[in-house]
Amino acid sequence: MKLLQLYAAMKSDLQAIEDQMAQTVTSDLPILSETSLHLLKAGGKRIRPVLVLLAGKFGNYSMESLKKVAVPLELIHMATLVHDDVIDDAETRRGQLTVKSKWDNRIAMFTGDYIYAKALTVITELDKPRIHQILSGAIVQMCIGEMEQIRDFFNVDQSIRNYLRRIRRKTALLIAISCQLGAMAADAPARTSHALYRFGYNVGMLFQITDDLLDLCGTEKAIGKPPGSDLRQGNITLPVLYALQEDSIREQLLKEIALIRESEGTANSAVAVKLVRSSRGIKTAENMAERYLAKALKALDSLPDIPAKRNLTDIARFVAKRSY
Amino acid sequence: MKLLQLYAAMKSDLQAIEDQMAQTVTSDLPILSETSLHLLKAGGKRIRPVLVLLAGKFGNYSMESLKKVAVPLELIHMATLVHDDVIDDAETRRGQLTVKSKWDNRIAMFTGDYIYAKALTVITELDKPRIHQILSGAIVQMCIGEMEQIRDFFNVDQSIRNYLRRIRRKTALLIAISCQLGAMAADAPARTSHALYRFGYNVGMLFQITDDLLDLCGTEKAIGKPPGSDLRQGNITLPVLYALQEDSIREQLLKEIALIRESEGTANSAVAVKLVRSSRGIKTAENMAERYLAKALKALDSLPDIPAKRNLTDIARFVAKRSY
Repeated sequence: MKLLQLYAAMKSDLQAIEDQMAQTVTSDLPILSETSLHLLKAGGKRIRPVLVLLAGKFGNYSMESLKKVAVPLELIHMATLVHDDVIDDAETRRGQLTVKSKWDNRIAMFTGDYIYAKALTVITELDKPRIHQILSGAIVQMCIGEMEQIRDFFNVDQSIRNYLRRIRRKTALLIAISCQLGAMAADAPARTSHALYRFGYNVGMLFQITDDLLDLCGTEKAIGKPPGSDLRQGNITLPVLYALQEDSIREQLLKEIALIRESEGTANSAVAVKLVRSSRGIKTAENMAERYLAKALKALDSLPDIPAKRNLTDIARFVAKRSY
Repeated sequence: MKLLQLYAAMKSDLQAIEDQMAQTVTSDLPILSETSLHLLKAGGKRIRPVLVLLAGKFGNYSMESLKKVAVPLELIHMATLVHDDVIDDAETRRGQLTVKSKWDNRIAMFTGDYIYAKALTVITELDKPRIHQILSGAIVQMCIGEMEQIRDFFNVDQSIRNYLRRIRRKTALLIAISCQLGAMAADAPARTSHALYRFGYNVGMLFQITDDLLDLCGTEKAIGKPPGSDLRQGNITLPVLYALQEDSIREQLLKEIALIRESEGTANSAVAVKLVRSSRGIKTAENMAERYLAKALKALDSLPDIPAKRNLTDIARFVAKRSY
């Protein structure tokens, strides 16, 4: 069963989550409902809820409990996007105006705070302290990841390890705990939730590396924004770091990145993108992505052969294959 | 025993909370430790921890549990201040540079997010789901209060009820639950934690009204900023709303507020402040503050006569008497 069919098969449960999300962010203050519903309507792949539900299949699948994990995880993801848009000064996301551009930065900041707080009210209905601890710990790590990203803007001397640690915090952790907490909410055995955490972690790393590759190699049409956005923002990603290790490329690429930095975002990153594309950085990053895919699939080995296992495999392969 | 003596008597427990706060916000990322410790060092009255500890005296006083409530409540308060400073574009707070001015808005936003998330990791160590539910519900209300404040900037037609609802959310609720959760963490009887909630709620309302009066009637020396800051920001407080009800004042005051609004914060609010001071608005607001004081004291009636009850009375009277 492939992705579209999977979404079709899960349609009613995903709709229940969507409804609960809308209901959760509908407040007695019209402006907050408006900003929040604007975000909800922009859609998204809802990958975290999908993973929560599939992980729940390895235990006692109950929408009542799983909803209380899936809804907050997706809302927390949304809250970080709103705050990211403030930081990145982003005008659009997924083709929709961002909250900070449709309203303003102040409203975006409090909308993020509000959605985040609302997410917590949902999860606190679940009487499982360990879930609360894991979630709050992951949110701390996400905040640290966001700050690391700011710290590392235009840092061309950062190590590969540095990059990997940052994307683990920024992206992989929330995906990992989506799998883990889904299993825990369904009272699956501890070894199952651990295996699913490892699956999610590796899929998350794979996801971010693929995303970073897309930003360099995708067409504007495919990725919905001009390629090289990361570089324009000063976000030095894996293929760029690998390209910088190449003697024949390094000098010129450093010069281009310095130009972008000095222009404060107004310079074109096309030359830098071209340099990276011509380097071995793309292939090396692709190889690393493949290793994360292999590790994600391996994490599933110990799990029982239920249909959800096949679905998780499909998701991992899909994440790896996003075309550019 | 008066306030200074109370702080002296509680010194070692308050120090334990201070240490735990510092330890909690010390991360493996230097910038986040720096910004967070900068905030901690700016100090403050630590009114929420004091209330948590005193409320704990009505049950089984255990610093182990009480710390896990006091630390997050004060950290959450600090997180909202950092975000407030971004919104208010404030350069200093309590005589110290704000995070947004010493670093920048982006760093201030993530510092707030980080401190907030760290606060949650502490409270999740407490295996009392009801406490988590009350806390997350209160944070939602605080966010709504912040948004209401933005919505109501320069709204001279808002009702008194509107003002009261806003300060309840923005200020009173966190003080109310400091008392309530302190009692709950110490396993005090439900009627005790309810009474303490009512006490804290009324002290919180009293606190904000007194604060709003101080901003109009205090000297620059006493309040650490030029009087009339609220008006310059567009924050229409209780004495101003009452002054606007006076026929002989209304027209001129509306004109002055319109001038401030049009100047986008550059105009002087001295004339408006003088007008409000000459109105019955001050006295009427003071009367309302006194009614909240009376209600706070009355809430304590049903509680056992232990020293902490006397301390709470002193705190309420102190909040009411902050001089201007």
